[in-house]
Amino acid sequence: MTQEPSESDAPATAAQVRRSWSVMPPAERVENFKAIDAGHSDDFFLALSAHDQATLLLAMAANERRLWMRVLAPDDAADVIQDLPEEQRNEFLQMLDEPTRREVTALMAYAQDAAGGLMSPRFARLRPEMTVGEAIRYLQRQAQEKLETIYYAYVLDQSQVLLGVVSFRDLFAANPDRPLATVMHTEIVSAPETMNQREVAEIIAQRDLQALPVIDAGGRMKGIVTVDDIVDVVQRTATEDMQKVGGMEALDTPYMQTSLFAMIKKRGGWLSALFLGEMLTASAMGYYEDEIAHAVILALFVPLIISSGGNSGSQATTLIIRAMALGEVAVRDWWRIIHREVTAGFLLGCLLATIGLIRILAWQAIFHTYGEHYVRVAIVVALSLLGVVTWGTVAGSMLPFLIRRFGFDPASASAPFVATLVDVSGLMIYFNVAQLVLHGTLL
Amino acid sequence: MTQEPSESDAPATAAQVRRSWSVMPPAERVENFKAIDAGHSDDFFLALSAHDQATLLLAMAANERRLWMRVLAPDDAADVIQDLPEEQRNEFLQMLDEPTRREVTALMAYAQDAAGGLMSPRFARLRPEMTVGEAIRYLQRQAQEKLETIYYAYVLDQSQVLLGVVSFRDLFAANPDRPLATVMHTEIVSAPETMNQREVAEIIAQRDLQALPVIDAGGRMKGIVTVDDIVDVVQRTATEDMQKVGGMEALDTPYMQTSLFAMIKKRGGWLSALFLGEMLTASAMGYYEDEIAHAVILALFVPLIISSGGNSGSQATTLIIRAMALGEVAVRDWWRIIHREVTAGFLLGCLLATIGLIRILAWQAIFHTYGEHYVRVAIVVALSLLGVVTWGTVAGSMLPFLIRRFGFDPASASAPFVATLVDVSGLMIYFNVAQLVLHGTLL
Repeated sequence: MTQEPSESDAPATAAQVRRSWSVMPPAERVENFKAIDAGHSDDFFLALSAHDQATLLLAMAANERRLWMRVLAPDDAADVIQDLPEEQRNEFLQMLDEPTRREVTALMAYAQDAAGGLMSPRFARLRPEMTVGEAIRYLQRQAQEKLETIYYAYVLDQSQVLLGVVSFRDLFAANPDRPLATVMHTEIVSAPETMNQREVAEIIAQRDLQALPVIDAGGRMKGIVTVDDIVDVVQRTATEDMQKVGGMEALDTPYMQTSLFAMIKKRGGWLSALFLGEMLTASAMGYYEDEIAHAVILALFVPLIISSGGNSGSQATTLIIRAMALGEVAVRDWWRIIHREVTAGFLLGCLLATIGLIRILAWQAIFHTYGEHYVRVAIVVALSLLGVVTWGTVAGSMLPFLIRRFGFDPASASAPFVATLVDVSGLMIYFNVAQLVLHGTLL
Repeated sequence: MTQEPSESDAPATAAQVRRSWSVMPPAERVENFKAIDAGHSDDFFLALSAHDQATLLLAMAANERRLWMRVLAPDDAADVIQDLPEEQRNEFLQMLDEPTRREVTALMAYAQDAAGGLMSPRFARLRPEMTVGEAIRYLQRQAQEKLETIYYAYVLDQSQVLLGVVSFRDLFAANPDRPLATVMHTEIVSAPETMNQREVAEIIAQRDLQALPVIDAGGRMKGIVTVDDIVDVVQRTATEDMQKVGGMEALDTPYMQTSLFAMIKKRGGWLSALFLGEMLTASAMGYYEDEIAHAVILALFVPLIISSGGNSGSQATTLIIRAMALGEVAVRDWWRIIHREVTAGFLLGCLLATIGLIRILAWQAIFHTYGEHYVRVAIVVALSLLGVVTWGTVAGSMLPFLIRRFGFDPASASAPFVATLVDVSGLMIYFNVAQLVLHGTLL
């Protein structure tokens, strides 16, 4: 099934190390990393995540660290240093040369997940009074500098306010004598430096941008975020959302690199919270203990009823959380969505109710399992399914809105959380329907 | 909370239309699209998804379609045409100019989710015997052509076999008289044309590439995939995975654009399958009907026990599915993972068992709910929790491996699917522990 990318001439080691990297303990990593030949170790190092780079640097001998710190671009260096233990940050900062250290310190002032923490301050700057030809020659001189890209250049005034943007390709296609101001695009999409990186990623993805300038409150340009920076963001946020929906705190590190203790902490917290919530089912069941004692048959369908509510709720929640994350729906759409989901829930409820009805009547015909009141039992189950699935769907779709409304992350409306909510209400729907339908017969 | 990206000079309409686009019916979309001024409608159209472009084209008057079809790059045109109803594809294909039509037809031969379906055939080609200066002048002439990018150029021999890759920046920084063959990189990462787009995205993301050449079985270069192409792929596959994990078939379209009927179909199928599976719980409960009749108290904890197994299973499944999707773990790691998960499951089980034990003893002390054998009941619940959580965790973590092993998509191991599996086994664990511990007292 899986096909390897072909990679001509690359020595076996780099590819091999890359393949088993995620499952290697830190000490082994250093050794394997050193085994990569000099021509490939740079690329290998730069392609690692900031967390992996930090772990690798910590595992190296102190005298080898400086070399690798200096390979990093300032935005990457800032990420690595922020990943280090507090007490070692300064030591690593001192390994950088003076101008880079100043850039890195400035970047570290931003929250790691803000546009400012994601951007590179090394972008190509042009002046509006240049001609196209001058701009090309200027960028050519910059080609060997450590700029993030020379393919998109930004036209700034004297106080660093962003006036326009021009792609290298535009310059190349234009008459060299034209003034830059007549070639540059002035309809600029930009992001404020405090914008969350999720939103930055969303803008770049939705607008098909190659690079997004980041500006401060005064309109001064501070850096650029390029499309390759946001691939990681998109992957990481999708992973976090999925882990939250799966009923746990999002891990900070890949699965294999998360310590058992950290894993238990991230999973145990939510699991305990859900367990405490689910205890309400024991109380609810206790409340209907007499009914169960009278008609044990009612107990048989409890798992079926509550799981149907939980499953329909999980579906709805997952759908809405993801649609919110992608910006497909906003809080103001809730009324439109509740309409859709009530209808969907009702139809899905009818579907399951029909299957449930057939199942009970069939089993009765074959095994005579359900006693003389089997028709009433079947009706109780079918009506409860209809109620539970409709309610589960509506509750599941609305919970993310509610959570977002109160300023929390909608992805915390995990599927298990919805299931727990719906379980208790599902039991109440079921036993109340039973009391209504079975009154005078089984109850 | 949310900050709008600033967009200087853009008229209000384009931004407004973009904001409410996802919730607009097709007819309204055409009207709104036409209201966007000519300077912005190109960008707006090109930033739409293939599905949205297709819907928009279908809703337009026939004489307006050609103009917009011709704005599209061949890879995008192929996607749009493949999104149209079968019987209209040829009509739209005829709207393209002859060379583009040939390119589009060639691209349509690839599966839409293969590297060949994702790539653009319009990449910059160079010959090895050129000098750096000649290459730059050649690319300059190409700047106005409809190439995907001029920033990465590919050096091919006469039979189109890929010899090397060179970035524009490399060229710019090199001496113009040097032969291209001495400047180009020959360690090329490439993808076969049949590679799945998920894997293409993974390679570009992991290796921090800007562009990936796609080659056929004979080593001939067919096209390039650029990093901005894969942002969509990464988002779409994460969305599909999440929807599958949430217990439904992945939607083909955004939530708001999915018809109610399609939605019911995608959700109802899985929901019915899960329901049929969950029916086994009714049979399992029926098997223990006598025990329940003797000790109704056992029924009270059924939802608590099975949901705990389901929740711990969902966590484990979600973690592993996502780690697999990101290439962090492979099938051959299963043994390492089972070790981790057995330990994690056991510790999480101990945690919940302790909470459960405390809960029952506390309730008994306060409300005297659980009768004279409350200590034994508490032991049954605690031991069952330990068993169910450990088993749920292990089953949840191994199911994705099993599914992948049989050649299916591991993301189909949805959280509800795991919960259903674990529910039945959870009931068996619970009632067997009860028989063992309560024998001679309650049972």
